[in-house]
Amino acid sequence: MAEKKITPRDKDYSQWYLDVIREGDVAEPAEVVKGCMVIKPHGYALWEGMRDDLDRRFKATGHKNAYFPLLIPMSFIQKEAEHVEGFSPELAVVTHAGGKELEEPYVVRPTSETIIGHFFAKWISSYRDLPLLINQWANVMRWELRTRMFLRTSEFLWQEGHTAHATHEEAVEETRRMLDVYADFAEEVMAMPVVKGEKTATERFAGALSTFSIEAFMQNGWALQAGTSHDLGQNFGKAFNVRFQNEEGKLDHVWQTSWGVSTRLVGALIMCHSDDNGLVLPPRLAPIEAVVVPIFRKAGERDRVVSACARLRDDLVAAGLSVELDDREGVKPGQKYYHWEARGVPVRVEIGPRDLDKGQVALKKRLAGSEREFVPMEGAVSRVRALMGEIQSEMLRRARERREESTVTVDSWDDFLDLFPEGRSSFVYAHWCGDAEVERQIKEETGGVTIRNVPLDTQPEPGRCIRTGRPSTGRVLFARAY
Amino acid sequence: MAEKKITPRDKDYSQWYLDVIREGDVAEPAEVVKGCMVIKPHGYALWEGMRDDLDRRFKATGHKNAYFPLLIPMSFIQKEAEHVEGFSPELAVVTHAGGKELEEPYVVRPTSETIIGHFFAKWISSYRDLPLLINQWANVMRWELRTRMFLRTSEFLWQEGHTAHATHEEAVEETRRMLDVYADFAEEVMAMPVVKGEKTATERFAGALSTFSIEAFMQNGWALQAGTSHDLGQNFGKAFNVRFQNEEGKLDHVWQTSWGVSTRLVGALIMCHSDDNGLVLPPRLAPIEAVVVPIFRKAGERDRVVSACARLRDDLVAAGLSVELDDREGVKPGQKYYHWEARGVPVRVEIGPRDLDKGQVALKKRLAGSEREFVPMEGAVSRVRALMGEIQSEMLRRARERREESTVTVDSWDDFLDLFPEGRSSFVYAHWCGDAEVERQIKEETGGVTIRNVPLDTQPEPGRCIRTGRPSTGRVLFARAY
Repeated sequence: MAEKKITPRDKDYSQWYLDVIREGDVAEPAEVVKGCMVIKPHGYALWEGMRDDLDRRFKATGHKNAYFPLLIPMSFIQKEAEHVEGFSPELAVVTHAGGKELEEPYVVRPTSETIIGHFFAKWISSYRDLPLLINQWANVMRWELRTRMFLRTSEFLWQEGHTAHATHEEAVEETRRMLDVYADFAEEVMAMPVVKGEKTATERFAGALSTFSIEAFMQNGWALQAGTSHDLGQNFGKAFNVRFQNEEGKLDHVWQTSWGVSTRLVGALIMCHSDDNGLVLPPRLAPIEAVVVPIFRKAGERDRVVSACARLRDDLVAAGLSVELDDREGVKPGQKYYHWEARGVPVRVEIGPRDLDKGQVALKKRLAGSEREFVPMEGAVSRVRALMGEIQSEMLRRARERREESTVTVDSWDDFLDLFPEGRSSFVYAHWCGDAEVERQIKEETGGVTIRNVPLDTQPEPGRCIRTGRPSTGRVLFARAY
Repeated sequence: MAEKKITPRDKDYSQWYLDVIREGDVAEPAEVVKGCMVIKPHGYALWEGMRDDLDRRFKATGHKNAYFPLLIPMSFIQKEAEHVEGFSPELAVVTHAGGKELEEPYVVRPTSETIIGHFFAKWISSYRDLPLLINQWANVMRWELRTRMFLRTSEFLWQEGHTAHATHEEAVEETRRMLDVYADFAEEVMAMPVVKGEKTATERFAGALSTFSIEAFMQNGWALQAGTSHDLGQNFGKAFNVRFQNEEGKLDHVWQTSWGVSTRLVGALIMCHSDDNGLVLPPRLAPIEAVVVPIFRKAGERDRVVSACARLRDDLVAAGLSVELDDREGVKPGQKYYHWEARGVPVRVEIGPRDLDKGQVALKKRLAGSEREFVPMEGAVSRVRALMGEIQSEMLRRARERREESTVTVDSWDDFLDLFPEGRSSFVYAHWCGDAEVERQIKEETGGVTIRNVPLDTQPEPGRCIRTGRPSTGRVLFARAY
């Protein structure tokens, strides 16, 4: 058997994450470019799969893609007061170009509300131009002090939706619609259940009236903010003078939204599902859905086994599956198993001389605890296809189960503290009085536990703040978070 | 009829190009970001169509997508002597980030040979790692003095292929294979015929042994370099120490290629096909393939006509076509025709009360000189589908014809000069002695005529240089170029 190169989750979760990325051939730190990474083909294919699926959902909800400049005049960032405060410390600045110092420096976009606001002002003049529903797939840059591959990198890939509406109601509706799109995508495609909710004022996007998020449960009990959707009110409309004539002929500023998900989702996918053998990928995103491994000891068996494997590979490809045949010479089956497990291939097909004699193949799911199942050769293709659906559902079921096992409702501060020893976390539903200062205090006293969001799908429930005992109208979700 | 807002090609070709882009809702200058543009949804959809088709071709030839950092350490650019000389004047430089001045500035990638070379050195150690076939879809920045939308902008979107091989032969083969992929794409999808050939030393990519290009014919007789493929030899392999152990166990530097096409192709598409009414788009790239326009005078006719239009729209969509129904109130049919013609929609479907009485619809191709044809309602869907193929072929045929009409073979310097009065151009095949100084002289004396490439598909033919009378082994392609 191949040497285990992945640190177990229980031993060191952070190291496990890095090991899974390395052994899964997903990405590597760029080193020579501070806080950046190279997304390798296997990792980029995961992002492509996410992008293509999300893009269909955005188009189905009426959005169109466009592209705005990478560079934004420094003065633009300064037009919305909270926005500049939020993003200034993280900006990368272009001061020279074409061999000369620039009169006004440009920032590399950290997000595009400002430059898009500038163009919305040119494009919108009447209620007939609304709603304007735009999305952009792009790279952005936020100079982060502490980085972690996919979860927080100086440059990342993302999409940013930007919309303008005639009324606040419509903008709020859009904000919630796109939150639902993200949540549906996370569950249906990533097999990752999420908690939809509203961020507290402290955690709001710089310049928004309200921010909604989807929060996913990672296997170490931590939360990961996987997507956000912002109701920008008229803040950017006023800062960039985006006005329209309404049906009554009066001028008003537009109501805007913005919403985004990023390559962070690749990190979420890994932390949600992978195990001590490497990546575990949901079939709907797996770049390779099945691998066929020929098993033989003697040279005489080779041709017969490999050609049967090649035929099955062809049949699987003809059935629409993405399949690899691992017929490498000089590599033992065990090493091959390790190789493809680390890369998260959902199903392994093994064929040896005895299988051929019996007219069968062995199938092994990538899921922990799965046993080999033997199926007749002629039923192999339909069984492998069926397994894709089974694995997809099973991954979501297990992820839900893990989250539920770590979800707790508490009402006393002592119990709360017990749930959050240093570095450890659960999903904890508790009451909070709504005071930002108390939120800050809780974060400080627990060494980092934050309110992830105020969940949308819980019932109002009167209670007392976990920290102050003051009245509260409902529980919020606490956790440590990436 | 709507006012004509597009300057005729014959009157002012450059203004015509800008007018077509504006009226076609393709893009607009960013103004606030020097030399940059905003690609609007209709223009971005063209780029998406190109990207998706090319991406399939790249994957079918064994390439995988990856993503490398936007920022490149300044010192990297300096490692390959010709490369730094070629790109230095155009670099945009990040000197500050996260509120501090950087120790070493970064450049915004003008192309990624250097940073990719750095990672290839980490990934490649043996001939078993070769060939390594990578592609990246990304934005790049080259600070240009004179810009023109799509053709030359400070930031543009592109793909850059980067491959490493064990032998020079394999690298040359790859260079030519990707040139063919580009040429096939240009003809089959863009309906734009191209001349494949090798660039002269003067026009080579900075750091390449040889550069190949596809050159397309624009309607004003100018050429446009639509894609390039470079044999990089071992230049970057040596600069970044990318070495591998060959089958004999000896260390050698890899042989590399790179190749790219960009949003420039959108400009090429416009200049190749569009007319004085606006965009003319090949069906394989048209974001909207057909528009249905209801025709009625009296309010009483409206419902009947519009509902027939909506039914046909649904049928066309069900048949897999991308279709718009223009049922806007208060806009006359003539204005609607202008609107969709300017946007290049290949087929317009018109239905009026008399058509309904006769059980027919009128179809009008976007091609110049096309007459309305009337077809029975029940045959409309299949006829519209068939028209897509017809228009695609006809556009390629016409583009070929225009090019052939403007392609000349000349053997005297006087004739050559007559073909190139100021600002005018044709595709001129003439002999050249191979001397770079003579090439420079010709460019100077003609005010900008250059050798586009040494075509690959012409037969060797002894002759005498058009300028010096010295012996030549074959004709090269001269033109003014964007």
